[in-house]
Amino acid sequence: MNSLSQPILQLSWQCLQNLRAHNPRIHALTNAVAQTLTPNVLLALRTIPSTTYTAEEIRVFVNSANTLLINLGTLDQERLTSIPQAVDVAIHAQKPWVLDPVFVERSPLRLQLAHRLLEKKPSVLRCNASEFNALTGDAISEHAVLAFARKHQLTVALTGEHDLVSNGEQVIRLSKGHPFMAMVTALGCSVSAMIAACLAVEQNPYNATLAALTLAGIAGENAAQNAKGPGSFAVLFLDALYQLNEHDFKSNT
Amino acid sequence: MNSLSQPILQLSWQCLQNLRAHNPRIHALTNAVAQTLTPNVLLALRTIPSTTYTAEEIRVFVNSANTLLINLGTLDQERLTSIPQAVDVAIHAQKPWVLDPVFVERSPLRLQLAHRLLEKKPSVLRCNASEFNALTGDAISEHAVLAFARKHQLTVALTGEHDLVSNGEQVIRLSKGHPFMAMVTALGCSVSAMIAACLAVEQNPYNATLAALTLAGIAGENAAQNAKGPGSFAVLFLDALYQLNEHDFKSNT
Amino acid sequence: MNSLSQPILQLSWQCLQNLRAHNPRIHALTNAVAQTLTPNVLLALRTIPSTTYTAEEIRVFVNSANTLLINLGTLDQERLTSIPQAVDVAIHAQKPWVLDPVFVERSPLRLQLAHRLLEKKPSVLRCNASEFNALTGDAISEHAVLAFARKHQLTVALTGEHDLVSNGEQVIRLSKGHPFMAMVTALGCSVSAMIAACLAVEQNPYNATLAALTLAGIAGENAAQNAKGPGSFAVLFLDALYQLNEHDFKSNT
Repeated sequence: MNSLSQPILQLSWQCLQNLRAHNPRIHALTNAVAQTLTPNVLLALRTIPSTTYTAEEIRVFVNSANTLLINLGTLDQERLTSIPQAVDVAIHAQKPWVLDPVFVERSPLRLQLAHRLLEKKPSVLRCNASEFNALTGDAISEHAVLAFARKHQLTVALTGEHDLVSNGEQVIRLSKGHPFMAMVTALGCSVSAMIAACLAVEQNPYNATLAALTLAGIAGENAAQNAKGPGSFAVLFLDALYQLNEHDFKSNT
Repeated sequence: MNSLSQPILQLSWQCLQNLRAHNPRIHALTNAVAQTLTPNVLLALRTIPSTTYTAEEIRVFVNSANTLLINLGTLDQERLTSIPQAVDVAIHAQKPWVLDPVFVERSPLRLQLAHRLLEKKPSVLRCNASEFNALTGDAISEHAVLAFARKHQLTVALTGEHDLVSNGEQVIRLSKGHPFMAMVTALGCSVSAMIAACLAVEQNPYNATLAALTLAGIAGENAAQNAKGPGSFAVLFLDALYQLNEHDFKSNT
Repeated sequence: MNSLSQPILQLSWQCLQNLRAHNPRIHALTNAVAQTLTPNVLLALRTIPSTTYTAEEIRVFVNSANTLLINLGTLDQERLTSIPQAVDVAIHAQKPWVLDPVFVERSPLRLQLAHRLLEKKPSVLRCNASEFNALTGDAISEHAVLAFARKHQLTVALTGEHDLVSNGEQVIRLSKGHPFMAMVTALGCSVSAMIAACLAVEQNPYNATLAALTLAGIAGENAAQNAKGPGSFAVLFLDALYQLNEHDFKSNT
């Protein structure tokens, strides 16, 4: 239960080095609000982001990407058409994909869609406490997260003040990051994209998720050191991702 | 006519404290350009923003929000369908709403739509001089703003180098802010969202509008002190909103 | 072949002064990711940006603009309808326009569309090496760029670590800028919008392109001096555009 055991730090640093070395292509089919921050986060990790959400082109873009993020935050007609197509391409080509069910607690339509997509077995589900509660009916606990991950045979990343991650066999609590992360719109969405990025260089979804949350958490803490508010924090978070270095993964305890 | 009389400062500080304490939900049905800055501004005020603009989901989101912003800056098929629905929900549920008729002087379609929406009596209309002129045929004056507010039974916030605010009975000129505010895209749109936020904690639309413009103006002046241009200004504006404290509302004259 | 000969610097400074003095209207029909940074870049140059992409309004907006940018980065149904209309209006009214064929190497649909639009003779094509290769089948060389510009009777701006610009008669290599420019999403798209801006104050497309790339390059170098990563770089780039002054165009060698 040690949130930053040496193996997790080492794994995270290894993932980051692989991202920087191999520059995988990440397709983020995300919402209208996240469409700038998400590719900037992915570029700071030295991946090659694409964000097309249109029905006409989604298949070719997902086909030429390494991994996929599906974020439900904007369900316009284009995305309602392209989301199922994107998932079909990913499944058919055995590409890892991440589901981010933004605001399912606010809309029956997206709750239904999220349930349908969960049946298609994303590699990872990333959500917050309200979304987890809407999806499962359960309050947050290590047990509930573990049970949900086991039932759906995926990795769950429940993020918040503390993060809970489970693959249905193990569950771990991570406590990195900073409250400013909740005050920058689409930063959670961008962390989901970071999981998709790590899935391109780390086959094990549980490990990829731990790595992504650790990278985000350390960058968040580094950024917060000089941030005066959520505006400067968002800028410094990108800088911090770009600057992450071996030292951050050794001294961080 | 004193732009920062003690009652306005006190009112503004009270609104901000209420926003921070109660975290109301603000639904911003806004344009494609404003979709990142606006929720970041709303988060810096500690409100809970949502920005869905899709026809399929607009009703449930407006229904679960405290107040609504309607911004006409993007009139795609989704928004042409969802804007009237959002307004209907707000009216039916007696939720306050703000109309921002972006660029009505450039497009007959949105001028028509703005006129139709004005008939539905938004709580507040926020516009700039060109938009006011297109809507009314009048040049800017305290008299014209007062007359328009009286005729349409709403509060008008005409923003620019100086701001004019009227509820049809009173009219006031505010002179806070900084020229950089006009050089950040969607900052005016975000100020309209700030009015929607204040309407969630202050029932009187005139007072809510004065409070929002005062919060924006003081934050703008604070941000400008360290800004080197419009890029850093936008970042520092978010920090300044987050940092606003009692001192800003006492010493500010 | 001197990348920053005195005439180019002088031309660039003259363009910037004209932009600041005349505030032309630039319509950027651009992709979903670029919709915030692009108008902010255009505002920093003191132009008046508009970014409507909707079929219902595209004609009136292009008609009242001085120049047009067409960026193919998002091909939703709205833009698939409005792009040809926007181009028709520009051609009919003899307004200069710029084509930015984002990611044509990834999608047959946009490659086809780019070819159709090239037949309509944009004033300037701005692309990167992968896009140029997809459009022409050629590897990058001064010869290939010159030949393509001559064949299509337009100015080509091929940007990357070095930029190549040709009008079919001359070809020049520019080497300003900074690697961070490739790590900020939509910065290339925004440079295309800067070309559209310069076309509003400089009739010769080749000269307007050289000026825009020089302004972007010098601002990029100035921004990089204080940037700690791609986050702060993006912010400082806007500040740097705003701050450009005569000194930058004299001492820059």
